[in-house]
Amino acid sequence: MKIFQVERTLVATARITQLENHRLLVVREKGGSRSVAVDPVGCKEGDWVIAVGSSAAKDAAGHAKYPSDLTIVGIIDFWEADAAGKAAP
Amino acid sequence: MKIFQVERTLVATARITQLENHRLLVVREKGGSRSVAVDPVGCKEGDWVIAVGSSAAKDAAGHAKYPSDLTIVGIIDFWEADAAGKAAP
Amino acid sequence: MKIFQVERTLVATARITQLENHRLLVVREKGGSRSVAVDPVGCKEGDWVIAVGSSAAKDAAGHAKYPSDLTIVGIIDFWEADAAGKAAP
Amino acid sequence: MKIFQVERTLVATARITQLENHRLLVVREKGGSRSVAVDPVGCKEGDWVIAVGSSAAKDAAGHAKYPSDLTIVGIIDFWEADAAGKAAP
Amino acid sequence: MKIFQVERTLVATARITQLENHRLLVVREKGGSRSVAVDPVGCKEGDWVIAVGSSAAKDAAGHAKYPSDLTIVGIIDFWEADAAGKAAP
Repeated sequence: MKIFQVERTLVATARITQLENHRLLVVREKGGSRSVAVDPVGCKEGDWVIAVGSSAAKDAAGHAKYPSDLTIVGIIDFWEADAAGKAAP
Repeated sequence: MKIFQVERTLVATARITQLENHRLLVVREKGGSRSVAVDPVGCKEGDWVIAVGSSAAKDAAGHAKYPSDLTIVGIIDFWEADAAGKAAP
Repeated sequence: MKIFQVERTLVATARITQLENHRLLVVREKGGSRSVAVDPVGCKEGDWVIAVGSSAAKDAAGHAKYPSDLTIVGIIDFWEADAAGKAAP
Repeated sequence: MKIFQVERTLVATARITQLENHRLLVVREKGGSRSVAVDPVGCKEGDWVIAVGSSAAKDAAGHAKYPSDLTIVGIIDFWEADAAGKAAP
Repeated sequence: MKIFQVERTLVATARITQLENHRLLVVREKGGSRSVAVDPVGCKEGDWVIAVGSSAAKDAAGHAKYPSDLTIVGIIDFWEADAAGKAAP
Protein backbone atom coordinates (compact mmCIF):
# COMPACT_ATOMS: atom_id res chain seq x y z
CA MET A 1 0.00 0.00 0.00
CA LYS A 2 1.08 3.56 -0.52
CA ILE A 3 0.57 6.71 1.50
CA PHE A 4 -1.30 9.59 -0.14
CA GLN A 5 -2.73 12.95 0.85
CA VAL A 6 -6.29 13.70 -0.27
CA GLU A 7 -6.58 16.80 -2.45
CA ARG A 8 -10.21 16.99 -3.58
CA THR A 9 -13.19 15.25 -5.11
CA LEU A 10 -13.07 14.52 -8.84
CA VAL A 11 -16.20 14.98 -10.94
CA ALA A 12 -16.62 12.75 -13.99
CA THR A 13 -20.22 12.75 -15.15
CA ALA A 14 -19.61 10.69 -18.30
CA ARG A 15 -18.44 7.35 -16.92
CA ILE A 16 -18.89 3.62 -17.39
CA THR A 17 -21.83 2.27 -15.41
CA GLN A 18 -19.64 -0.13 -13.41
CA LEU A 19 -18.13 2.86 -11.55
CA GLU A 20 -21.56 3.35 -9.94
CA ASN A 21 -21.81 6.41 -7.69
CA HIS A 22 -18.65 5.82 -5.69
CA ARG A 23 -16.81 8.92 -4.68
CA LEU A 24 -13.54 9.50 -6.56
CA LEU A 25 -10.74 11.50 -4.94
CA VAL A 26 -7.65 13.11 -6.39
CA VAL A 27 -4.79 11.99 -4.15
CA ARG A 28 -1.08 12.62 -4.22
CA GLU A 29 2.03 10.87 -2.94
CA LYS A 30 4.52 13.18 -1.22
CA GLY A 31 6.58 14.57 -4.08
CA GLY A 32 4.81 12.34 -6.58
CA SER A 33 2.18 12.71 -9.24
CA ARG A 34 -1.58 12.73 -8.77
CA SER A 35 -3.70 9.60 -8.86
CA VAL A 36 -7.43 8.99 -8.54
CA ALA A 37 -8.71 6.69 -5.78
CA VAL A 38 -12.08 5.25 -4.84
CA ASP A 39 -13.03 6.23 -1.29
CA PRO A 40 -15.16 3.78 0.70
CA VAL A 41 -13.85 5.17 4.03
CA GLY A 42 -15.07 8.76 3.95
CA CYS A 43 -12.01 11.01 3.84
CA LYS A 44 -11.83 14.76 3.91
CA GLU A 45 -9.44 17.11 2.16
CA GLY A 46 -5.93 17.04 3.62
CA ASP A 47 -6.22 13.59 5.20
CA TRP A 48 -3.21 11.28 4.91
CA VAL A 49 -4.50 7.89 3.83
CA ILE A 50 -3.41 4.36 2.92
CA ALA A 51 -4.54 3.16 -0.50
CA VAL A 52 -4.25 -0.31 -1.98
CA GLY A 53 -3.52 -0.96 -5.65
CA SER A 54 -3.26 -4.01 -7.87
CA SER A 55 -6.17 -6.45 -8.05
CA ALA A 56 -6.81 -6.00 -4.30
CA ALA A 57 -8.29 -2.57 -5.10
CA LYS A 58 -11.34 -4.21 -6.63
CA ASP A 59 -12.52 -6.14 -3.58
CA ALA A 60 -11.58 -3.23 -1.31
CA ALA A 61 -13.96 -1.02 -3.32
CA GLY A 62 -16.86 -3.37 -2.80
CA HIS A 63 -16.76 -6.40 -5.06
CA ALA A 64 -14.49 -8.41 -7.37
CA LYS A 65 -15.68 -6.72 -10.55
CA TYR A 66 -15.51 -3.10 -9.42
CA PRO A 67 -13.21 -1.21 -11.86
CA SER A 68 -10.68 0.22 -9.37
CA ASP A 69 -6.89 -0.06 -9.30
CA LEU A 70 -6.53 2.28 -6.28
CA THR A 71 -8.83 2.19 -3.26
CA ILE A 72 -8.45 3.97 0.06
CA VAL A 73 -8.46 1.45 2.92
CA GLY A 74 -7.65 3.58 5.98
CA ILE A 75 -6.99 7.05 7.36
CA ILE A 76 -3.66 7.41 9.15
CA ASP A 77 -4.07 8.63 12.75
CA PHE A 78 -0.93 10.70 12.67
CA TRP A 79 1.38 11.37 9.77
CA GLU A 80 4.19 13.83 9.83
CA ALA A 81 4.01 15.31 6.34
CA ASP A 82 7.52 16.72 6.40
CA ALA A 83 9.00 13.37 7.25
CA ALA A 84 7.28 11.54 4.39
CA GLY A 85 9.99 12.31 1.88
CA LYS A 86 13.11 11.86 3.99
CA ALA A 87 14.44 9.75 6.85
CA ALA A 88 12.35 9.74 10.00
CA PRO A 89 13.84 11.93 12.72
CA MET B 1 -6.62 5.33 -11.57
CA LYS B 2 -4.53 7.82 -13.44
CA ILE B 3 -5.39 11.00 -15.30
CA PHE B 4 -4.57 11.18 -19.00
CA GLN B 5 -5.22 13.48 -21.94
CA VAL B 6 -6.45 11.88 -25.16
CA GLU B 7 -4.17 12.50 -28.14
CA ARG B 8 -5.59 10.48 -31.03
CA THR B 9 -6.89 7.17 -32.30
CA LEU B 10 -4.34 4.41 -32.89
CA VAL B 11 -4.68 2.17 -35.94
CA ALA B 12 -3.40 -1.40 -35.65
CA THR B 13 -4.84 -3.55 -38.41
CA ALA B 14 -2.77 -6.66 -37.56
CA ARG B 15 -3.99 -7.58 -34.09
CA ILE B 16 -5.01 -10.57 -32.00
CA THR B 17 -8.69 -11.43 -32.42
CA GLN B 18 -9.44 -10.92 -28.71
CA LEU B 19 -8.96 -7.15 -29.17
CA GLU B 20 -12.15 -7.19 -31.29
CA ASN B 21 -13.04 -3.83 -32.83
CA HIS B 22 -12.66 -1.73 -29.70
CA ARG B 23 -11.31 1.75 -30.26
CA LEU B 24 -7.72 2.26 -29.06
CA LEU B 25 -6.54 5.72 -28.07
CA VAL B 26 -3.08 7.14 -27.56
CA VAL B 27 -3.20 8.91 -24.20
CA ARG B 28 -0.61 10.78 -22.19
CA GLU B 29 -0.08 11.63 -18.55
CA LYS B 30 0.92 15.26 -17.95
CA GLY B 31 4.70 15.24 -18.39
CA GLY B 32 4.71 11.47 -18.83
CA SER B 33 5.06 9.02 -21.66
CA ARG B 34 2.36 7.83 -24.01
CA SER B 35 0.18 4.80 -23.32
CA VAL B 36 -2.59 3.11 -25.28
CA ALA B 37 -6.04 2.76 -23.70
CA VAL B 38 -9.26 1.05 -24.69
CA ASP B 39 -12.14 3.54 -24.88
CA PRO B 40 -15.62 2.27 -24.01
CA VAL B 41 -16.77 5.79 -23.04
CA GLY B 42 -16.48 7.69 -26.33
CA CYS B 43 -13.78 10.34 -25.85
CA LYS B 44 -12.65 12.98 -28.24
CA GLU B 45 -9.20 14.43 -28.82
CA GLY B 46 -8.05 16.69 -25.99
CA ASP B 47 -10.37 15.23 -23.34
CA TRP B 48 -8.93 14.69 -19.87
CA VAL B 49 -9.95 11.22 -18.74
CA ILE B 50 -9.61 8.72 -15.90
CA ALA B 51 -8.21 5.32 -16.90
CA VAL B 52 -7.97 2.18 -14.81
CA GLY B 53 -5.05 -0.25 -15.02
CA SER B 54 -4.18 -3.60 -13.48
CA SER B 55 -6.60 -6.49 -13.80
CA ALA B 56 -9.57 -4.12 -13.38
CA ALA B 57 -8.94 -2.89 -16.93
CA LYS B 58 -10.23 -6.16 -18.31
CA ASP B 59 -13.74 -6.04 -16.85
CA ALA B 60 -13.95 -2.29 -17.48
CA ALA B 61 -13.35 -2.98 -21.20
CA GLY B 62 -16.23 -5.40 -21.38
CA HIS B 63 -15.43 -8.82 -19.93
CA ALA B 64 -12.93 -10.70 -17.78
CA LYS B 65 -10.90 -12.01 -20.72
CA TYR B 66 -10.55 -8.80 -22.72
CA PRO B 67 -6.80 -8.12 -23.21
CA SER B 68 -6.57 -4.61 -21.74
CA ASP B 69 -4.31 -3.24 -19.00
CA LEU B 70 -5.58 0.35 -19.42
CA THR B 71 -9.22 1.26 -19.95
CA ILE B 72 -10.85 4.68 -19.88
CA VAL B 73 -13.64 4.74 -17.28
CA GLY B 74 -14.72 8.39 -17.24
CA ILE B 75 -14.28 11.86 -18.74
CA ILE B 76 -13.37 14.54 -16.21
CA ASP B 77 -15.86 17.44 -16.19
CA PHE B 78 -13.20 20.04 -15.55
CA TRP B 79 -9.46 19.61 -15.36
CA GLU B 80 -6.98 22.40 -15.13
CA ALA B 81 -4.19 21.15 -17.35
CA ASP B 82 -1.60 23.55 -15.99
CA ALA B 83 -2.21 22.41 -12.47
CA ALA B 84 -1.77 18.74 -13.26
CA GLY B 85 1.99 18.78 -12.80
CA LYS B 86 2.33 21.00 -9.74
CA ALA B 87 0.55 21.86 -6.51
CA ALA B 88 -3.04 23.02 -6.85
CA PRO B 89 -3.37 26.79 -6.46
CA MET C 1 -0.96 -0.92 -23.19
CA LYS C 2 2.42 0.45 -24.08
CA ILE C 3 4.13 1.08 -27.40
CA PHE C 4 7.37 -0.76 -28.11
CA GLN C 5 9.74 -1.30 -31.02
CA VAL C 6 10.82 -4.86 -31.76
CA GLU C 7 14.58 -5.38 -31.59
CA ARG C 8 15.18 -9.12 -32.05
CA THR C 9 14.32 -12.65 -31.05
CA LEU C 10 15.55 -13.87 -27.67
CA VAL C 11 16.87 -17.39 -27.32
CA ALA C 12 16.45 -19.12 -23.96
CA THR C 13 16.89 -22.85 -24.31
CA ALA C 14 16.70 -23.60 -20.57
CA ARG C 15 13.16 -22.58 -19.69
CA ILE C 16 10.16 -23.71 -17.68
CA THR C 17 7.89 -26.00 -19.69
CA GLN C 18 4.89 -23.66 -19.37
CA LEU C 19 6.63 -21.21 -21.74
CA GLU C 20 6.13 -23.81 -24.50
CA ASN C 21 7.63 -22.85 -27.85
CA HIS C 22 6.23 -19.34 -28.05
CA ARG C 23 8.50 -16.82 -29.69
CA LEU C 24 10.05 -14.30 -27.28
CA LEU C 25 11.07 -10.87 -28.53
CA VAL C 26 13.31 -8.21 -27.03
CA VAL C 27 11.31 -4.97 -27.27
CA ARG C 28 12.04 -1.45 -26.19
CA GLU C 29 10.00 1.62 -25.30
CA LYS C 30 11.24 4.84 -26.91
CA GLY C 31 13.94 6.04 -24.54
CA GLY C 32 13.20 3.25 -22.09
CA SER C 33 14.75 -0.02 -21.08
CA ARG C 34 14.37 -3.37 -22.79
CA SER C 35 11.62 -5.85 -21.97
CA VAL C 36 10.81 -9.32 -23.25
CA ALA C 37 7.40 -9.95 -24.83
CA VAL C 38 5.57 -13.00 -26.12
CA ASP C 39 4.62 -12.59 -29.79
CA PRO C 40 1.43 -14.29 -30.97
CA VAL C 41 1.03 -11.78 -33.83
CA GLY C 42 4.13 -12.43 -35.92
CA CYS C 43 6.25 -9.27 -35.80
CA LYS C 44 9.46 -8.51 -37.57
CA GLU C 45 12.46 -6.50 -36.46
CA GLY C 46 11.80 -2.76 -36.34
CA ASP C 47 7.99 -3.03 -36.06
CA TRP C 48 6.25 -0.67 -33.67
CA VAL C 49 3.80 -2.72 -31.64
CA ILE C 50 1.24 -2.52 -28.83
CA ALA C 51 1.87 -4.86 -25.91
CA VAL C 52 -0.39 -5.58 -22.97
CA GLY C 53 0.91 -6.19 -19.44
CA SER C 54 -0.61 -7.15 -16.11
CA SER C 55 -2.76 -10.28 -15.85
CA ALA C 56 -4.25 -9.57 -19.29
CA ALA C 57 -0.94 -10.70 -20.82
CA LYS C 58 -1.71 -14.29 -19.89
CA ASP C 59 -4.94 -14.70 -21.86
CA ALA C 60 -3.53 -12.64 -24.73
CA ALA C 61 -0.68 -15.18 -25.01
CA GLY C 62 -3.07 -18.07 -25.34
CA HIS C 63 -4.58 -19.16 -22.04
CA ALA C 64 -5.10 -18.10 -18.43
CA LYS C 65 -2.09 -20.00 -17.11
CA TYR C 66 0.50 -18.93 -19.67
CA PRO C 67 3.42 -17.28 -17.79
CA SER C 68 3.53 -13.92 -19.57
CA ASP C 69 3.37 -10.41 -18.16
CA LEU C 70 3.90 -8.73 -21.56
CA THR C 71 2.25 -9.91 -24.77
CA ILE C 72 2.16 -8.20 -28.15
CA VAL C 73 -1.44 -7.65 -29.24
CA GLY C 74 -1.10 -5.59 -32.43
CA ILE C 75 1.26 -4.01 -34.95
CA ILE C 76 0.79 -0.27 -35.39
CA ASP C 77 0.02 0.69 -39.00
CA PHE C 78 1.99 3.90 -38.81
CA TRP C 79 4.08 5.22 -35.97
CA GLU C 80 6.30 8.23 -36.18
CA ALA C 81 9.31 7.14 -34.16
CA ASP C 82 10.66 10.64 -33.65
CA ALA C 83 7.38 11.81 -32.19
CA ALA C 84 7.21 9.01 -29.63
CA GLY C 85 9.26 10.85 -27.04
CA LYS C 86 7.93 14.36 -27.39
CA ALA C 87 4.71 16.24 -28.21
CA ALA C 88 3.09 15.33 -31.54
CA PRO C 89 3.65 17.98 -34.19
CA MET D 1 9.77 -9.53 -4.45
CA LYS D 2 11.51 -6.47 -3.18
CA ILE D 3 13.78 -5.87 -0.21
CA PHE D 4 12.66 -3.35 2.40
CA GLN D 5 13.74 -2.18 5.83
CA VAL D 6 11.07 -1.95 8.52
CA GLU D 7 10.67 1.54 9.96
CA ARG D 8 7.70 1.39 12.33
CA THR D 9 4.09 0.40 12.92
CA LEU D 10 1.41 2.47 11.21
CA VAL D 11 -1.78 3.29 13.08
CA ALA D 12 -4.96 3.75 11.06
CA THR D 13 -8.01 3.49 13.28
CA ALA D 14 -10.53 4.44 10.56
CA ARG D 15 -10.21 1.58 8.09
CA ILE D 16 -12.31 -0.75 5.96
CA THR D 17 -13.37 -3.86 7.83
CA GLN D 18 -11.62 -6.21 5.40
CA LEU D 19 -8.25 -5.01 6.76
CA GLU D 20 -9.15 -6.77 10.03
CA ASN D 21 -6.60 -6.30 12.80
CA HIS D 22 -3.50 -7.15 10.80
CA ARG D 23 -0.43 -5.21 11.70
CA LEU D 24 0.62 -2.60 9.14
CA LEU D 25 4.26 -1.55 8.88
CA VAL D 26 5.90 1.43 7.21
CA VAL D 27 8.75 -0.03 5.15
CA ARG D 28 11.30 1.52 2.86
CA GLU D 29 13.43 0.37 -0.06
CA LYS D 30 17.07 1.48 0.15
CA GLY D 31 17.04 4.96 -1.35
CA GLY D 32 13.37 4.65 -2.26
CA SER D 33 10.08 5.92 -0.97
CA ARG D 34 8.01 4.54 1.87
CA SER D 35 5.35 1.88 1.42
CA VAL D 36 2.96 0.18 3.82
CA ALA D 37 3.07 -3.62 4.16
CA VAL D 38 1.00 -6.21 5.98
CA ASP D 39 3.15 -8.24 8.40
CA PRO D 40 2.14 -11.87 9.00
CA VAL D 41 5.73 -12.80 9.96
CA GLY D 42 6.33 -10.68 13.07
CA CYS D 43 9.08 -8.20 12.23
CA LYS D 44 10.75 -5.69 14.46
CA GLU D 45 12.02 -2.21 13.66
CA GLY D 46 15.19 -2.23 11.57
CA ASP D 47 14.69 -5.72 10.11
CA TRP D 48 15.48 -6.20 6.41
CA VAL D 49 12.60 -8.13 4.89
CA ILE D 50 11.28 -9.57 1.63
CA ALA D 51 7.81 -8.38 0.63
CA VAL D 52 5.64 -9.62 -2.21
CA GLY D 53 3.39 -7.36 -4.28
CA SER D 54 0.87 -7.82 -7.06
CA SER D 55 -2.05 -10.20 -6.53
CA ALA D 56 0.22 -12.62 -4.63
CA ALA D 57 0.11 -10.21 -1.68
CA LYS D 58 -3.49 -11.15 -0.99
CA ASP D 59 -2.98 -14.87 -0.38
CA ALA D 60 0.28 -14.18 1.44
CA ALA D 61 -1.67 -12.00 3.90
CA GLY D 62 -4.11 -14.78 4.70
CA HIS D 63 -6.75 -15.26 2.02
CA ALA D 64 -7.64 -14.39 -1.57
CA LYS D 65 -9.85 -11.43 -0.65
CA TYR D 66 -7.54 -9.71 1.83
CA PRO D 67 -6.94 -6.13 0.58
CA SER D 68 -3.13 -6.10 0.44
CA ASP D 69 -0.79 -5.27 -2.43
CA LEU D 70 2.36 -5.62 -0.30
CA THR D 71 2.88 -8.40 2.24
CA ILE D 72 6.04 -9.34 4.11
CA VAL D 73 6.93 -12.99 3.43
CA GLY D 74 10.33 -13.39 5.14
CA ILE D 75 13.04 -11.81 7.25
CA ILE D 76 16.48 -11.81 5.65
CA ASP D 77 19.09 -13.57 7.82
CA PHE D 78 21.85 -11.19 6.86
CA TRP D 79 21.63 -8.11 4.72
CA GLU D 80 24.42 -5.65 4.27
CA ALA D 81 22.59 -2.34 4.24
CA ASP D 82 25.39 -0.40 2.64
CA ALA D 83 25.58 -2.82 -0.25
CA ALA D 84 21.87 -2.57 -1.06
CA GLY D 85 22.27 0.43 -3.33
CA LYS D 86 25.48 -0.49 -5.13
CA ALA D 87 27.37 -3.51 -6.42
CA ALA D 88 28.10 -6.18 -3.84
CA PRO D 89 31.71 -6.17 -2.69
CA MET E 1 9.17 -10.10 -18.78
CA LYS E 2 12.34 -8.38 -17.73
CA ILE E 3 15.99 -9.34 -18.07
CA PHE E 4 18.02 -9.75 -14.88
CA GLN E 5 21.45 -10.98 -13.85
CA VAL E 6 21.64 -13.41 -10.95
CA GLU E 7 23.74 -12.16 -8.04
CA ARG E 8 23.37 -14.73 -5.27
CA THR E 9 21.08 -16.84 -3.11
CA LEU E 10 19.08 -15.08 -0.42
CA VAL E 11 18.64 -16.72 2.96
CA ALA E 12 15.46 -15.96 4.90
CA THR E 13 14.90 -18.53 7.62
CA ALA E 14 11.88 -16.77 9.16
CA ARG E 15 9.30 -16.93 6.38
CA ILE E 16 5.64 -17.64 5.77
CA THR E 17 4.97 -21.33 5.19
CA GLN E 18 3.54 -20.75 1.72
CA LEU E 19 7.05 -19.89 0.47
CA GLU E 20 7.96 -23.55 1.05
CA ASN E 21 11.59 -24.38 0.36
CA HIS E 22 11.88 -22.70 -3.01
CA ARG E 23 15.20 -21.11 -3.75
CA LEU E 24 15.20 -17.31 -3.66
CA LEU E 25 17.74 -15.36 -5.70
CA VAL E 26 18.85 -11.76 -5.55
CA VAL E 27 18.69 -10.50 -9.15
CA ARG E 28 19.40 -7.17 -10.71
CA GLU E 29 18.35 -5.34 -13.87
CA LYS E 30 21.22 -3.68 -15.72
CA GLY E 31 21.58 -0.31 -14.02
CA GLY E 32 18.55 -0.98 -11.86
CA SER E 33 17.83 -1.95 -8.29
CA ARG E 34 17.87 -5.41 -6.78
CA SER E 35 14.82 -7.67 -6.67
CA VAL E 36 14.23 -11.15 -5.28
CA ALA E 37 13.02 -13.90 -7.62
CA VAL E 38 11.91 -17.48 -7.17
CA ASP E 39 14.06 -19.86 -9.22
CA PRO E 40 12.41 -23.02 -10.57
CA VAL E 41 14.94 -23.26 -13.43
CA GLY E 42 18.22 -23.77 -11.56
CA CYS E 43 20.38 -20.72 -12.26
CA LYS E 44 23.91 -20.03 -11.19
CA GLU E 45 25.56 -16.79 -10.21
CA GLY E 46 26.15 -14.46 -13.15
CA ASP E 47 23.48 -15.97 -15.41
CA TRP E 48 21.33 -13.57 -17.42
CA VAL E 49 17.74 -14.67 -17.02
CA ILE E 50 14.16 -13.80 -17.99
CA ALA E 51 11.77 -13.33 -15.08
CA VAL E 52 8.02 -12.88 -15.18
CA GLY E 53 6.12 -10.60 -12.80
CA SER E 54 2.49 -9.76 -12.13
CA SER E 55 0.05 -12.57 -11.35
CA ALA E 56 1.79 -14.83 -13.90
CA ALA E 57 4.65 -15.22 -11.40
CA LYS E 58 2.46 -17.39 -9.19
CA ASP E 59 1.71 -20.16 -11.68
CA ALA E 60 5.26 -20.00 -13.03
CA ALA E 61 6.54 -20.76 -9.50
CA GLY E 62 4.42 -23.86 -9.22
CA HIS E 63 0.79 -23.15 -8.47
CA ALA E 64 -1.84 -20.38 -8.40
CA LYS E 65 -1.44 -19.66 -4.69
CA TYR E 66 2.37 -19.50 -4.50
CA PRO E 67 3.33 -16.06 -3.10
CA SER E 68 5.65 -14.84 -5.86
CA ASP E 69 5.55 -11.66 -7.91
CA LEU E 70 8.82 -12.43 -9.75
CA THR E 71 9.74 -15.88 -11.05
CA ILE E 72 12.60 -16.86 -13.32
CA VAL E 73 11.27 -18.60 -16.44
CA GLY E 74 14.38 -19.04 -18.59
CA ILE E 75 18.13 -18.62 -18.89
CA ILE E 76 19.23 -16.54 -21.87
CA ASP E 77 21.63 -18.43 -24.16
CA PHE E 78 23.66 -15.36 -24.96
CA TRP E 79 23.32 -11.88 -23.57
CA GLU E 80 25.76 -9.10 -24.22
CA ALA E 81 25.92 -7.39 -20.84
CA ASP E 82 27.38 -4.17 -22.17
CA ALA E 83 24.58 -3.77 -24.68
CA ALA E 84 21.82 -4.14 -22.09
CA GLY E 85 21.77 -0.47 -21.19
CA LYS E 86 22.18 1.14 -24.59
CA ALA E 87 21.28 0.60 -28.25
CA ALA E 88 22.40 -2.73 -29.72
CA PRO E 89 25.48 -2.37 -31.92
